[in-house]
Order: sequence, then structure tokens, then C-alpha cells
Amino acid sequence: MKAYQALTERFQRLARLDHLSAIAGWDMQTMMPSGGSDARGEALAELSVMHHEILVQASTAELIAQAQHEALDSVQQANLHEISRHYNDAALLPTELVEAQALAGSRCERAWRQQRIENDWQGFQRNLVPVVELARQEAQLRAQALGVSPYDGLLNLYEPGMTSQRLDTLFGELIGWLPDLLQQVVAKQPSRTALPTQRIYPISQQKALAESVMQLLDFDFEHGRLDISAHPFCGGVSTDVRITTRYDTTEFLSALMGVIHETGHARYEQNLPKQWSGQPIGLARSTAIHESQSLFLEMQLGRSKAFLQRLHPLICQHLTAATDLSLDDLVKQVQHVSPGLIRVDADEVSYPAHVILRYEIERSLINGEVEVGDIPDLWNDTMQRYLGLSTAGDYRNGCMQDIHWTDGSFGYFPTYTLGAMYAAQLFNSLQQQLPSIDEAITLGDLKPIFDWLNHAIWRQGSRYSVDALMQQATGETLNPKWFRQHLERRYLGR
Amino acid sequence: MKAYQALTERFQRLARLDHLSAIAGWDMQTMMPSGGSDARGEALAELSVMHHEILVQASTAELIAQAQHEALDSVQQANLHEISRHYNDAALLPTELVEAQALAGSRCERAWRQQRIENDWQGFQRNLVPVVELARQEAQLRAQALGVSPYDGLLNLYEPGMTSQRLDTLFGELIGWLPDLLQQVVAKQPSRTALPTQRIYPISQQKALAESVMQLLDFDFEHGRLDISAHPFCGGVSTDVRITTRYDTTEFLSALMGVIHETGHARYEQNLPKQWSGQPIGLARSTAIHESQSLFLEMQLGRSKAFLQRLHPLICQHLTAATDLSLDDLVKQVQHVSPGLIRVDADEVSYPAHVILRYEIERSLINGEVEVGDIPDLWNDTMQRYLGLSTAGDYRNGCMQDIHWTDGSFGYFPTYTLGAMYAAQLFNSLQQQLPSIDEAITLGDLKPIFDWLNHAIWRQGSRYSVDALMQQATGETLNPKWFRQHLERRYLGR
Ligand SMILES: [Zn+2]
Ligand SMILES: [Zn+2]
Repeated sequence: MKAYQALTERFQRLARLDHLSAIAGWDMQTMMPSGGSDARGEALAELSVMHHEILVQASTAELIAQAQHEALDSVQQANLHEISRHYNDAALLPTELVEAQALAGSRCERAWRQQRIENDWQGFQRNLVPVVELARQEAQLRAQALGVSPYDGLLNLYEPGMTSQRLDTLFGELIGWLPDLLQQVVAKQPSRTALPTQRIYPISQQKALAESVMQLLDFDFEHGRLDISAHPFCGGVSTDVRITTRYDTTEFLSALMGVIHETGHARYEQNLPKQWSGQPIGLARSTAIHESQSLFLEMQLGRSKAFLQRLHPLICQHLTAATDLSLDDLVKQVQHVSPGLIRVDADEVSYPAHVILRYEIERSLINGEVEVGDIPDLWNDTMQRYLGLSTAGDYRNGCMQDIHWTDGSFGYFPTYTLGAMYAAQLFNSLQQQLPSIDEAITLGDLKPIFDWLNHAIWRQGSRYSVDALMQQATGETLNPKWFRQHLERRYLGR
Repeated sequence: MKAYQALTERFQRLARLDHLSAIAGWDMQTMMPSGGSDARGEALAELSVMHHEILVQASTAELIAQAQHEALDSVQQANLHEISRHYNDAALLPTELVEAQALAGSRCERAWRQQRIENDWQGFQRNLVPVVELARQEAQLRAQALGVSPYDGLLNLYEPGMTSQRLDTLFGELIGWLPDLLQQVVAKQPSRTALPTQRIYPISQQKALAESVMQLLDFDFEHGRLDISAHPFCGGVSTDVRITTRYDTTEFLSALMGVIHETGHARYEQNLPKQWSGQPIGLARSTAIHESQSLFLEMQLGRSKAFLQRLHPLICQHLTAATDLSLDDLVKQVQHVSPGLIRVDADEVSYPAHVILRYEIERSLINGEVEVGDIPDLWNDTMQRYLGLSTAGDYRNGCMQDIHWTDGSFGYFPTYTLGAMYAAQLFNSLQQQLPSIDEAITLGDLKPIFDWLNHAIWRQGSRYSVDALMQQATGETLNPKWFRQHLERRYLGR
């Protein structure tokens, strides 16, 4: 076990570097004054170079090869599998490609912030072309190594084991029934009582409300905190999880539901297996499983009538301008469905349409079947078909709305909808196993839920593959019917 | 210049690691929830090991030797001198000694926090003995390398070029007249009108006041911020300087004067020469020069009548409970002298007595002339002689009050009083060169002061030795008479 031991020490060291990079990255989004960004960027880049050097040094491959002949127990084998996956993911790319990607990506992202405001597709296109070109090279290298299609080479970085063949089936089926369901929901849903406008919800009150909801959701404040950033995220490290939100003093629900979402990510991180901390097996399983935990809390639990009954008095208690909000109005607001152009504002029924649209375009783009110039028309056509909306000429609210492609993060989008499907399947299983759970939720007794999630997902870390994890937790691998059932029950009362 | 070039790249890399360690260290004191400390400590220790490995690798010594034969301009030569000093300081100690010190120091410091509360000298002594023993080994190694006495080996880490022979003269003279001056001041000073008690100064108001004073002092908020920590400090990096304070809602002056002090440190950091950033020559000159900048702002400027005339309306404007504070009362409070047992609470007249007492003990301790067991009696005797106060049996408010010795930072204490003397000398020079400066201060026109400091100290970085820096700035090396003159003028009206 000498080689395995040496590998665990090396990965422990890398985890400590990741710790510093997570905290300095969080600081950059929440605390850092604007003048600090250049030096911070350089410091973080230096750390990432050192991380890469340590990870891909020749001896890592040798130690992995040796460790594969050592007598390891099943946990050690699983860890070695993850070690080897992380090593291969990193070692596969030539340094020049990584550097060229960093350069093209940061140039494209920086310019995009202004180009989006100016609806400047031509300018954006010029920067996006090299980003796509480099992503194709990366995809090619990863695909060769894994023996998969180019796009799947990137997809595997976020969702190990997932294939576009499987996604085509899952998403194809989903998009078969979704537009119709959406139409029914929109036609059927009760008219939403507009929340009173011109009311002010002070940030201090919203923060106190958010923290009391985090407490209800058992967020561990000894190992984490809540702050403000322009774009909400969950960062930090598992011993010290930093979640963020942004407050709008005229509307409190999006910040609040955002906090519930990030608390889902946070609880996963806070409950990862301590005995494997610092090792790859101790990390969260995948991007989609991570998203399933945030969507479990935000969508499955957080927007359920049972939970809203518990949430309602907290809102009335903390927000002096919301004391007259009725439970009924709260439910209507939180469950309102309204197809729109913007993904991040989408309700949970329309959301998969946004994701599948992007998946189809990025898969074809990476596989070389379409070019950057084709994106606007593809986008507009698909929006028309899926949501009945046009984005012709409106790049800003169309294909230029997301940050993901600007730095070349192709393969990420599918994890949003995979996460939503995993979440629905997990919640369904929980309901099967604990039939009285709705009653407990209404009373604010969420411990059985968290015990269940901890047992099913959190404490497993990366010990099992996604499929094995879901099989153990729910008795089957990903089955999209639970997501459909969830939407039909909640929004059509079936 | 190839070797020199390679060295600058290596030190640039080290500076980037220092950046991350400064930010993660700041976070630890200001933001981190308690449960995050173990993992943070490990991450920071890992970074410091990597820093050490990069710095002391054999090739650094080779590059330094080669660079010494390269054609370098005077700036490059000064930088190479600093590079070589940093390398020698780090390379001199065997890793086992550094590790043993870290262990003994952190054990002693952790236990001290409780032992101090419990006045437990016996317990503290047991942990301090190995700390002193290891510091003596370190001192011996440094002394041999530099050809100086053991204590001077440590002193040079904080104040390069300073010797205990010179300190003995400086401090000996100072302590010759100080007790007498102190008696005269105490006898002569106007009775201080007690500030009204039972008033509340809300933290939000104190923070707004602090930030408006920082603005007056030209703190650059694009490159820094103010936060709260248990022990005030100035941290971060020069592009992003993080200062802290702590607020007491029943008394606002100590937080306010503390902010002025830390702003002095901050302005030095913010104005270090940008063209040398990342290189040792671009760093602050020494611990005492750093302290001279904070004491220049806090003591020379901040507690002067001229400045208090400008500060007074700001206090009345921000603190609703202080609108009736008169300028006269403010001056009496801020300039009140009252010898006491605690160094950090001491006024500027008594302060040197606290420092010289510690200097004398730690010098004898490191040079092997006294033992840890002798400290309490030495402390009590010296307090009696210098300040007429007894600490017999009261270890908590005597020799156990400071953190410095607990982790082995011997050689640091003298820099407080050196800083006070440098500050007085600098302020005197400024007044000579700009005779109308008091009037400008009263009007809040501080730009001439900062331009002068920038020219004299800040933008020089570590280009010159401390003596050369002072010589250029004031026409002479350290001369203690300016500090005496300052005290006599302010407190005896001479
Ligand atoms: Zn999420
Ligand atoms: Zn200071």
C-alpha cells in the first residue's frame, strides 16, 4: 500500500491548495474591493499552475499504476478510481491548450459583459469562435482517451458516466411532453394575485429571514456563513461553506428561494464524509447530483404547499411589509408558471426547455455539426418550438444571456435538468418510504428528510458511480417519469 | 542578468503565495466560522511549507551567487540584497527546528489564552521553557551567520541592521529621563473630565465615523476595506489592504484611535512602489518603520490639537450620543496620561517603559543570562522602578499579558518604541520643512503630509537601509531627542 499511501498524501496536499483557492475565490466575489482584482487573479492563477504541476507530475501516473497492484479494500479502490479519474482529466491536456483556453475564455467573458448589454452578436461571435475551436480540441483529446464522442468527452467532466446517447433519449422524451404540459398549466393555473408593489423589504430583515430559514433547513453556522454577491453561489470548503445571495428591497421571494437553493448545495458539502476528507472519494459525486440537492430543497421541498405552510409565518414574522401576505398568495407566487426568454428566471416547468435547447446546440457545436454563426437561428427556431417565443434579433435575451459558453464550459448545461430529475426521483422515494412526511414538513420537522438524504447521498461522497448511487437510494437508475409525475401533480393536480 | 531574472520570477511566485496566505489569514480573523479553523490551519501550513520549499531550494543560492556577478543597476542590486537576505533568513534553519518551534509555539499560545485568565504562571512556565529553548537555538544559528550576539540574530528579523548595543544606548538614555517626565506630566496635567458614562455609541455610527476618518486620511477604498476582529490588525496585500478594529458600544475613542493607527500601516502598504511589486525591494522596509507610519498617524498627527480640531466635528456629526462633547474634553481624553500595568492600554508617555522592560528581559533570556523562572521577579522589580507599580503575584496583568513570547517572537518588542522615535523624528522634519503644517491640519488639508511621507518613506520600499532611509528623510539617522522633545512639548508645554 505504499504507492496508494503516497497518492493519498499528494491528494491531501492538493485539497489544501483547493481550500485556499476556494476561500480566495469566495473573497473575490463577496469582499474584495475592485482594485484588488488583478493581483488576486494572478495569485489564483499561480496556485492553479502549482496545483496542476503537482497533480500531473510523472510520478503520479507511476504511483497509480503501482497502487493498482496493491491490496486495497473497496473504499481504497473507489478512491483510487477517483484519483485516477482526476489525474487523467488533468494530465490529458497539453499545457499550451490549457493556457490558450484560459486566455480566449477570459477575453470572451470579459467582452461579453458589455457586448450582452449592447446586443452585439457580431462582436461576441468573433470572440466565441476561438473558444469553441479550442473546446473542440479539448473534446477531441478527451473523447479519444475515453473512447466516446467529442461532446461526451466534455460532458464527462461534469457528469462522469453520462453519454449524449442517453441524454438524447431522456431529453427527447421530456421535450416530447413538456410543451403540451406547459400549455395546460398556463391555461389552468389560478390567476396570481400581484404582490403589493411599492413596498420596501429592508435587507437587514431579509437577511434575518434568510438565516432563520437556513436554520430551519439545519444549515450548520459553525461551518459556514451567508453573504452577498452579484451572482449567488455556494463556495468555500466543506468545513466552512460560504453561500451567497443578492437582495432586492422591492421583492423578497427570489433572494429567499435562492438561499434555499444554495442551502441545498451547502448541506451536501457540510455533510460529505469526514473520514475521507481531503481525498477525491470524499468529494461530491457530480455536478448534477449537486444540483439535485439544491433543487431537492428549493423545488421539491421549498415550493411544496407543506413547506410553504411552515415558511409563511417566518416571512410574516421577519418582514414588516409582508405581515398581510396570505398563505394562499404565497403559494400562488411561488408556484407560478410563466414561460419566458431568460433561463435563470424560469419556473421549474419551463426550465428544462431552456436546458434542452442549449444542450442540443452545444452538442452539435462541439461535434462539429454546426458553427457559431448558426447559433442565433437555431436558438430562435428552438425557442419557438419549445416555448412559443421568438428571440429573432434579440441576442441579449437569446443566445447571449448565459456566461457558460463564454469561457468554454460546454457540457455543463445538461446537469441542471439531470439535477431536477434526480431530485424528483429522490423526493418520490422519500415519500414512498416515509408516507407521513408531508405532515412532518408542515410542522417544520425536517430531520427525517435530512437523515434520509444524508444516508442516501451526502455521506456517500464519491464512493459509488451516479447510477449505483441512485440505484441504492431509490431502487432504480435515473427514471424521468418521477419528474413528469412531480410536475403533473403539483401543477395539474393529477 | 539571466540569474537575476530567474530570481525575480521565483520571488514573484512567492509573493503570489504570500497574497493567498494574507487573504486566508485575514479571513480567519474576520469572517471564518469557528468550525473552519482546523482545516484552515492545515491549508495555511501547507502553503507555508510550499513557500519554504520554493525559497530554500539549492538553486536559489546558486542563482544568488551567479547574479552577484551580473551587471545590475542600483535598484537591481538593492533587490538582490533583499532577495539574499530573505533567502538566508529562511535557509538558515533546519526544517526540524522550524517544525519543533511551530509545535511548541502553537501549544504554548493556545494554552496561554486560558492560563492567562486563570493567572496560572506555573502552567504557562512549563510551555514557555521549550519555546525559549528553541528560540535560543534559532538565535544561535542566526547569530553565527551574521556574526552578532544571539539576541541580535532575532532582532534582525524585524529590524535589519539594528543591534542590542545600539538599543542599550537608545533605551538606556530614554529610560533615564522617562520616569521623571512621567511624574511631572501626571502632576501637571489638567484633570480629565470623565466622559459621560451609560451612553451608547451604536456600532453602525462608529463604523461610519471610522470610515469618514479613513477618508480624511486618504485611505484608498478601491484597494482596501475596514472590518471587525478580536485583535485589530492591518493585513491583506498592498493592492487590497484589510484593516480591522473592534467596537465597544460604551466607549468610542479606543476603536477610533485604533483605526487611525491601522490606517497609518495601511497607507504605507497602499503606497509601496508599484513598479517593484512582487519583489522584496517593493516591500515595507522594516517592522519599526511600519510602526512609525501607524504612530505618525495615531500619535504625532492623530492626537495633536490641530488634528483633533478637525476630528471633533466629525465625531459630533456621526455619534448622536456625542453631540455635546467639547473639543476641550476631547483633547483631554486623547492626551490623558496614566501609567498602568497593561501595555496595549498605555498612553504614549508610559509606553516606552513597557517596551524597555520587555526588551531587557528578552535580551537576557535569549542570551542565556536569565531563565524563564526569573521572569516574574524581574518584571515586578522593573515595573516598580519604571512606573512605580507592582505586579507581584499578578501574572495575568504582568508577564503573562502579551502574546508575543508565547509563539517565540523574541526581538519584536523593541520595534514599538523604535517606531515611536522614528515617527517623532519624521514629524519634526516635516514641521521644519513645512512650517505652516499645523494650520493645514486644522483645515483638514493633509495632502502635504501624505506627499511628504510618500516621498520620504512609502515609495522607497526596501531600497535603502533603515539608517539611509532616515538620513535621506530627516538629515540624520535615528536621534531620540525628537521623541523627548515631542513628549515635553505636548505634555509639559515646553
Ligand atoms: Zn445550483
Ligand atoms: Zn501598529
